[in-house]
Amino acid sequence: MFNKILIANRGEIALRIIRACKELGIKTVAVYSEADRESLHVTFADEAVCIGPPLGKESYLKIPAIISAAQVTGADAIHPGYGFLAENANFSEICNESEITFIGPTPAMINAMGDKSFAKDTMKKNGVPVIPGSDGVVKELKEAIRISHEIGFPIIIKASAGGGGKGMRIVWEEKDFEKAFVTAQTEAESAFGNPDVYIEKFLENPRHIEVQVVGDKHGNVYHYGERDCSVQRRHQKLIEEAPSPVLDETLREKMGEAAVLGAHSVNYLGAGTIEFLLDKYHNFYFMEMNTRIQVEHPVTEMVHDVDLIREQILVAAGEKASPPPHNHMGHAIEFRINAEDPEKDFRPSPGKITSLHFPGGLGVRIDSHIYQSYTIPPYYDSLIAKLIVWAKDRPQALARAKRALEEFIIEGIKTTIPFHLQVLQDERFISGNFDTGFLEKFTFKKHD
Amino acid sequence: MFNKILIANRGEIALRIIRACKELGIKTVAVYSEADRESLHVTFADEAVCIGPPLGKESYLKIPAIISAAQVTGADAIHPGYGFLAENANFSEICNESEITFIGPTPAMINAMGDKSFAKDTMKKNGVPVIPGSDGVVKELKEAIRISHEIGFPIIIKASAGGGGKGMRIVWEEKDFEKAFVTAQTEAESAFGNPDVYIEKFLENPRHIEVQVVGDKHGNVYHYGERDCSVQRRHQKLIEEAPSPVLDETLREKMGEAAVLGAHSVNYLGAGTIEFLLDKYHNFYFMEMNTRIQVEHPVTEMVHDVDLIREQILVAAGEKASPPPHNHMGHAIEFRINAEDPEKDFRPSPGKITSLHFPGGLGVRIDSHIYQSYTIPPYYDSLIAKLIVWAKDRPQALARAKRALEEFIIEGIKTTIPFHLQVLQDERFISGNFDTGFLEKFTFKKHD
Repeated sequence: MFNKILIANRGEIALRIIRACKELGIKTVAVYSEADRESLHVTFADEAVCIGPPLGKESYLKIPAIISAAQVTGADAIHPGYGFLAENANFSEICNESEITFIGPTPAMINAMGDKSFAKDTMKKNGVPVIPGSDGVVKELKEAIRISHEIGFPIIIKASAGGGGKGMRIVWEEKDFEKAFVTAQTEAESAFGNPDVYIEKFLENPRHIEVQVVGDKHGNVYHYGERDCSVQRRHQKLIEEAPSPVLDETLREKMGEAAVLGAHSVNYLGAGTIEFLLDKYHNFYFMEMNTRIQVEHPVTEMVHDVDLIREQILVAAGEKASPPPHNHMGHAIEFRINAEDPEKDFRPSPGKITSLHFPGGLGVRIDSHIYQSYTIPPYYDSLIAKLIVWAKDRPQALARAKRALEEFIIEGIKTTIPFHLQVLQDERFISGNFDTGFLEKFTFKKHD
Repeated sequence: MFNKILIANRGEIALRIIRACKELGIKTVAVYSEADRESLHVTFADEAVCIGPPLGKESYLKIPAIISAAQVTGADAIHPGYGFLAENANFSEICNESEITFIGPTPAMINAMGDKSFAKDTMKKNGVPVIPGSDGVVKELKEAIRISHEIGFPIIIKASAGGGGKGMRIVWEEKDFEKAFVTAQTEAESAFGNPDVYIEKFLENPRHIEVQVVGDKHGNVYHYGERDCSVQRRHQKLIEEAPSPVLDETLREKMGEAAVLGAHSVNYLGAGTIEFLLDKYHNFYFMEMNTRIQVEHPVTEMVHDVDLIREQILVAAGEKASPPPHNHMGHAIEFRINAEDPEKDFRPSPGKITSLHFPGGLGVRIDSHIYQSYTIPPYYDSLIAKLIVWAKDRPQALARAKRALEEFIIEGIKTTIPFHLQVLQDERFISGNFDTGFLEKFTFKKHD
């Protein structure tokens, strides 16, 4: 087992990883930027190393500074968390060269899944359903138009190296195709340094359903059921739940098997997520694989009684992954509490927290790095806390979520708490019958 | 179902009840003393009524003020919590007369179980094992000595109306009997207005194991397994866990059945606890029944996935109790965080909380009414928070407890947190092989 793990991240996920390490009796090293001196991950780690100025590229993304911090402190492994360097194959490679275990998949697996069209191809070859589309990258306009006709409009053009909505264009009719194709290529080039795009059938308002997998070095790959992440605002997840309100046991098992098949095809090591889109006819299609822990992993932990960060550490150290329990149990929902102003189009709202009260009691979990009098720096992601509720069934989980959000007090900054409270009143959300288009039609009511 | 529930209590349990009511969609009324204006149960209830000065007998024990608050606000039920009026048959009776549902057993049940020697008799008649001793009250010295000889020393003299160690005397040899008998009677008279005492075989360092039961108006009584509460300081529980580290499935089932038998014998309604002592030969004996919710109820909730306050409310409204799941699951431990100074013989340490950080993350539950800048009043029980940890097994629960206690920060007052951290290092506690004598031999190491 590892003796000391360096956490190459900040915020709630850094704290989450420190907690798992402590429970395993492993020492921890925090790294922090100059803006994060007062952060709890610095307080609770056994050691802490300042790695540079606030901006990500000068600290949390600066590979030499992080490797050097690991070497100076004698850390024998690095956990990258999510974001920053978590899906950077080069970083994983450099860790290997420095004889530090990267807690995550190999560089080859990260590369394979990071190339979206290659990943899709791999899945397709291994029998995992994929969205109809081009076989990989399409470079020529004529060829692109031919393929689009074959698939049938609407289609979506996506950047091969993409993510977060960049280099992405939906085309409803042929007349708009040329302009969209060129724009997508240009945007991909400027965002990712790679103009490659591919084409897919555009699914109108599907559900976003993803399956958690864990693979070990002994050839086991297990799935831990699904998470439904259909409540998204501009491709950003805001509420996630497990199980999905729309899957029955047969479909759940089919999607789980497809996810395991996909992960097996690359001999996957570590925790990963296979993201699917589910159309209104309950057909599911592989979208992409994330080769890291995800923000929304706690909902899976609550319904499957698994500690996914612990699993990541154990399998990276060569141990066997824990088989999931036979059935999921109860219902869990995560609400992302962001320092954003829902009255002002979710504009970031950094600043000092003047008063704070976390909800507590039965079935309530808080993952957060904030505290009263903490100042949220303006440089990073706006996620400041995750509220996860668990109850026996979805209606009880919704009731628990309402009471927990009502007793969640954060003063001094604006947050998404009032937004979540309004979503909880929405008939469609309550019914479970919603899709990724849900928030487009949802209007946040401003207070007087 | 009830429309509005008045909570005749304060502190963490008042907040706990408010949470259950909110999740059931029931309105809440808080009552508070002048010392509790700034308390969270006042903030989070829908309505709040001041019922008098700080001292318990002038507010939380003042029946007319509480009934009047219920009438003024139109509450149709009262939840008494624990302590204060929770086991006051007269209060339960007055609620009935005022046509307000008392959420708890009937006055007759409270009376029957409140009389310790009567309770013991009832249990014995119904086949529940009781500690060998006098059949009820013993008034004459000669008779008392005869009975003691029959049982064999050591014996314990207990006040019939007793509780909390008052009117209780252990006698190791006959020569000390007379003095102890007279003192116990005098102490019982002055503490409870009733000099009656009874005699029992004194079990040396037994384990304190209690079984949670819930009965409904349809004749169902279920048990939800045991709690091991052997970590006590002067009869005050400090750490409780479920399941007990020493029971096997056979003994667990036997004790559960005995508890159900006992509760059935009085047609028990509501949540109650049958307390047993377990000797070193694994014989168990009925000690007493508590006819209310207990401080340590959360450990049962964690391993049996039951919401016991919700159950109390539902069965009081005439619904059926929820059958417990077939098996317990995982391991839960509760640590009572008291505003006490373990370096100064656990002297109360009220005052202002200048800095506060609750632990969070997977498997951590906090039930507490405190917040940063809250001032703990000197008038009430010193319990300020309950930390409950859950994990798959006891070793993982201990590891989680350690990391959670290490990140629990309360500044401005002294608490039992450092005490708990030292207990977690103790070999006997870690092994699970301890009894109610454990803390007598445990020495808290003061810091330099």
